[in-house]
Amino acid sequence: MEPAAFHESRPTRVDLLIRPEWIIPIEPAGITLSGHVLAIDKGRIVDLVPQNEATQRFQPDETLDLPGQVLLPGLINLHTHAAMSLMRGYADDQPLMKWLTEHIWPAEARFVGPDFVRAGTLLACAEMLRGGITTFNDMYFFPQAAAESARRAGMRAVLGLIAIEFPSAYATDADDYLAKGLALRDTLADDPLLSFCLAPHAPYTVADKTFEKIATLGAQLELPVHMHLHETQQEVSDSIKLHGVRPLQRMQRLGLLNPNLIAVHAVHLEPTEIDLLLQHGCHIAHCPTSNMKLGSGIPDMAAIQAHGINFGLGTDGAASNNRLDLFQEMRHAALAAKGSSRDATVLDAHTILRAATLGGARALGQDDRIGSLLPGKCADLCAIRLDDWLIQPCFDPASHLVYVAGRENVTHTLIDGKIVMRDGLPIHIPAPALRSAVALWHNRLTS
Amino acid sequence: MEPAAFHESRPTRVDLLIRPEWIIPIEPAGITLSGHVLAIDKGRIVDLVPQNEATQRFQPDETLDLPGQVLLPGLINLHTHAAMSLMRGYADDQPLMKWLTEHIWPAEARFVGPDFVRAGTLLACAEMLRGGITTFNDMYFFPQAAAESARRAGMRAVLGLIAIEFPSAYATDADDYLAKGLALRDTLADDPLLSFCLAPHAPYTVADKTFEKIATLGAQLELPVHMHLHETQQEVSDSIKLHGVRPLQRMQRLGLLNPNLIAVHAVHLEPTEIDLLLQHGCHIAHCPTSNMKLGSGIPDMAAIQAHGINFGLGTDGAASNNRLDLFQEMRHAALAAKGSSRDATVLDAHTILRAATLGGARALGQDDRIGSLLPGKCADLCAIRLDDWLIQPCFDPASHLVYVAGRENVTHTLIDGKIVMRDGLPIHIPAPALRSAVALWHNRLTS
Repeated sequence: MEPAAFHESRPTRVDLLIRPEWIIPIEPAGITLSGHVLAIDKGRIVDLVPQNEATQRFQPDETLDLPGQVLLPGLINLHTHAAMSLMRGYADDQPLMKWLTEHIWPAEARFVGPDFVRAGTLLACAEMLRGGITTFNDMYFFPQAAAESARRAGMRAVLGLIAIEFPSAYATDADDYLAKGLALRDTLADDPLLSFCLAPHAPYTVADKTFEKIATLGAQLELPVHMHLHETQQEVSDSIKLHGVRPLQRMQRLGLLNPNLIAVHAVHLEPTEIDLLLQHGCHIAHCPTSNMKLGSGIPDMAAIQAHGINFGLGTDGAASNNRLDLFQEMRHAALAAKGSSRDATVLDAHTILRAATLGGARALGQDDRIGSLLPGKCADLCAIRLDDWLIQPCFDPASHLVYVAGRENVTHTLIDGKIVMRDGLPIHIPAPALRSAVALWHNRLTS
Repeated sequence: MEPAAFHESRPTRVDLLIRPEWIIPIEPAGITLSGHVLAIDKGRIVDLVPQNEATQRFQPDETLDLPGQVLLPGLINLHTHAAMSLMRGYADDQPLMKWLTEHIWPAEARFVGPDFVRAGTLLACAEMLRGGITTFNDMYFFPQAAAESARRAGMRAVLGLIAIEFPSAYATDADDYLAKGLALRDTLADDPLLSFCLAPHAPYTVADKTFEKIATLGAQLELPVHMHLHETQQEVSDSIKLHGVRPLQRMQRLGLLNPNLIAVHAVHLEPTEIDLLLQHGCHIAHCPTSNMKLGSGIPDMAAIQAHGINFGLGTDGAASNNRLDLFQEMRHAALAAKGSSRDATVLDAHTILRAATLGGARALGQDDRIGSLLPGKCADLCAIRLDDWLIQPCFDPASHLVYVAGRENVTHTLIDGKIVMRDGLPIHIPAPALRSAVALWHNRLTS
């Protein structure tokens, strides 16, 4: 044997080698690999190579064999109010404004504080990790408490620096909300799993002056701006009455339409408004379950897909969903788009898987770090068992993930190369502690 | 103690007492009981009484304690092609006619025979039992083989006596289909778990002459008539071209509109057609997942509910769903109706639970036997665990079943008072045998 060849074939030590039945890397688009292996070191993806090549190239400290399982990038929940998991099913079968003004807002006014947010976010993190979600984009009061729970869970989070005109236990006015949010961002700037976005609640709860500040801050700090937009027909008509224009035109006037904007819901869009979002490089957080459950409507995702607007998927809060489950959201996005457009070919399985991963990452400005299995990216992953008898046979792992499997089939969730959920149990969140904290809040909410 | 009182309080022996946390009896409508007990004897419901009363009144041979669980009537799958579970995900993201003519029908022509139907129906029964379904209304070739698998599973089935004009391995022409179906009905007449319906495939595959025979047979034999109807816009416009009228008008002309009719799908209905179905006491089998997945459309269930037309829920076959899961169907029915009507109050949780149980039973003409927990009815039941940490907190068991829980939370399924599924496993269907039979057909279908 030649010394050169010997030298070339000496394997590189890596922390972990994962050998699943299939890998769907999302990039390149639309492919499902079998007989491949993912190598991980120091929390990053080193490479994705055929199995025989891996044996020569890598010397892993650990190997994780996943027969019958498919490996995906971790799912990204592009819109949630994590702490609201404590209000899961608190008021069902109610329209949005009645649900908000008669049930949710009064309960929030009475109960929401740091303890509520800490407990609710921990429950939400446990639920999301169990279902293969590795990153969530949050909007809620007391983001400091949400950050504590995300850190405890070992979960990647984008904390929304919420702004709303009305006072709460958290802050007194929009300036106070923003000041508290920015101070939190300074405090937590060094946490590799945490990042931030500006989160003005909605056009109907935030004033022009505040939006202008947020537009400036977004540009200066290069932060995503995450807001409810065109969720209901009433929001649109109220805006015309009050501001003379539709909310999206108002946002354009206020300088908010740019690639930082994540328009959450975007249910009611005229064709010209879809063009507008495209021209300005805006993103959409599509929340099909919440939109249907609250009777807000079904957005024209076929048109949004045809225009090539980037979109991700969000669960919204558990009070309007009532699960923080992106498998459900993937299925509902595909089904609602096909049913409402009467075209079975729109939002096909690979498009949906991409939305739930890379689409979310791009919207958050983090597609250089997460959302696909390209070498160099963070090893945020989920593995899903497709060989359970209940979901046999399987002809195509990609469409099986969208139309057959559920979060109950997720076996492992990894963040930065570390296992954070295995065998249905989040590693860092003991179920008994979770259960008693939730029971306490359940009692208070029903008292 | 007085002898009379002593006599009165002597408890009655019963086979089984079930003590769940909650009971939703469906009749009376809209209620959720706690602290109640269901008494069962010889496969029938004896009574549903408060727990303290039960101790005095009943001496059970066995008691089943179900803390944290809710007890419901077994779910009724009002439309399926059970054997097609072997083609789960065989061709996804395709419109109905292309899906049928280029994928499903050619595969059926090549592979479908008694062995295929036996294996596919057994898989379907296992899946349905796992998810709390106790009765299914089937339409497929070789109903004899489907009956064998339903009997093996211990499941209640309504076998469709299929009729279609084109020849298959099963029968040569419509008369042959009907003759074979009726002969099967004679053979199996004594099985208490089996019953029958006439199952002309659809207006576009069955001739007038055959429909006329079916109308006569339905009336003579008092059999439900179960057919695909107004599934797609194309079906409606083709009928206008070919017959000069819409399919429903054609069915009226042929004498099919009466309380025997179960109109499957009924996606595209004019307001006058909704009136027509109401006037004639017809039933609808609503299959929301299949309708959305195939791009057929979203029916106006808000209008159908407002008219008071009886409807049940169906999964359709696994090739167009891709799960035989009525929990999913309940959720999709509620969400699609709210989203498309933009009214969050339509198809509320109790309405949905009723559709998935009593609605199906009424459509099948079996509401005197199944579909609710009235004394005297068959003890067809399912129990669902609502105390898993993943789905906490729970404010209302009824809406929790529709919006939060899934088939993964079903712990027990009982038919005629006998446990047929426990701890996720169908009692009479060993998973290894099922798995190898399915693998064999998977190989053939991909060869």
